Amino acid sequence: MLLLALGSLAVRNISEIPQSDFGRGGLSHITIAGAVLHGMKEVEIWLQTFAPGSRTPIHRHSCEEVFVVLKGKGTLMLASSSHKYPGTPQVFQLYSNSTFSIHVNDPHQVLNTDEYEDLQMLVVISRPPVKVFIYEDWSMPHTAARLKFPYYWDQECLHEPKDEL
Amino acid sequence: MLLLALGSLAVRNISEIPQSDFGRGGLSHITIAGAVLHGMKEVEIWLQTFAPGSRTPIHRHSCEEVFVVLKGKGTLMLASSSHKYPGTPQVFQLYSNSTFSIHVNDPHQVLNTDEYEDLQMLVVISRPPVKVFIYEDWSMPHTAARLKFPYYWDQECLHEPKDEL
Repeated sequence: MLLLALGSLAVRNISEIPQSDFGRGGLSHITIAGAVLHGMKEVEIWLQTFAPGSRTPIHRHSCEEVFVVLKGKGTLMLASSSHKYPGTPQVFQLYSNSTFSIHVNDPHQVLNTDEYEDLQMLVVISRPPVKVFIYEDWSMPHTAARLKFPYYWDQECLHEPKDEL
Repeated sequence: MLLLALGSLAVRNISEIPQSDFGRGGLSHITIAGAVLHGMKEVEIWLQTFAPGSRTPIHRHSCEEVFVVLKGKGTLMLASSSHKYPGTPQVFQLYSNSTFSIHVNDPHQVLNTDEYEDLQMLVVISRPPVKVFIYEDWSMPHTAARLKFPYYWDQECLHEPKDEL
């Protein structure tokens, strides 16, 4: 019985982890291994599914991020942190079994631009929990981007902002 | 043409990334996003496929590690770093769509214990490139485990050990 109990802690069934849209229409988010939920200190992994037409906000975060596209098609809009504001983003097509990385603090947005199919991705970040700065558009200065912390999927369990942001 | 060139750098087709067994029979390893190959500083992601009967060595590393099992079945052997040697490991069953995390420095081994089916996993580590300490068996003292650095998939591109181990 002890081994069984430990087993259920050590190995978890992703199908049984609760998913939610966290108030964002068209999103299904699952934290596979996270700081707030599972005590991770250095990496965090999400499984995210975007319905056709749905998207992330334009945002940046002070961490590395890697995406692995499991299903569907989409678009990555990617700008730079080296000017006063993001400016016109570069546009990249995403497809099943593709991967891409976002450099620390580069503003970006991921969109499901397909009409019919879901876009499903594994997302890996460093320095969890994520501290997200949201832009209203690509011409908003970096300094005006609004901090959203804790982020939607962390805020149910984490109410106090940390000192070091 | 410029956009096309940048696109091929930013978004990569995992199917086109070279795989190798790196001299370990039954292994197929692909570095999806890595320190040595892609300049990652905080996280690294591998796609690993273990043929029936194949396994990792018993080993530890000073980083966090998360596995996502994509296909197949297997076994996780997990010990602790809190005594002089690992000792009898706990045994956990792995299955498709399961996930598990290895704490910093906990000795562990992953085995494909199925007779017929490959075991395929996405593996995420922090603090890349990985510095692996290998045990001959579960009763070898932690201090006797042998450092293998650079690890097999990093050594083709990285010849000089770093100062900070």
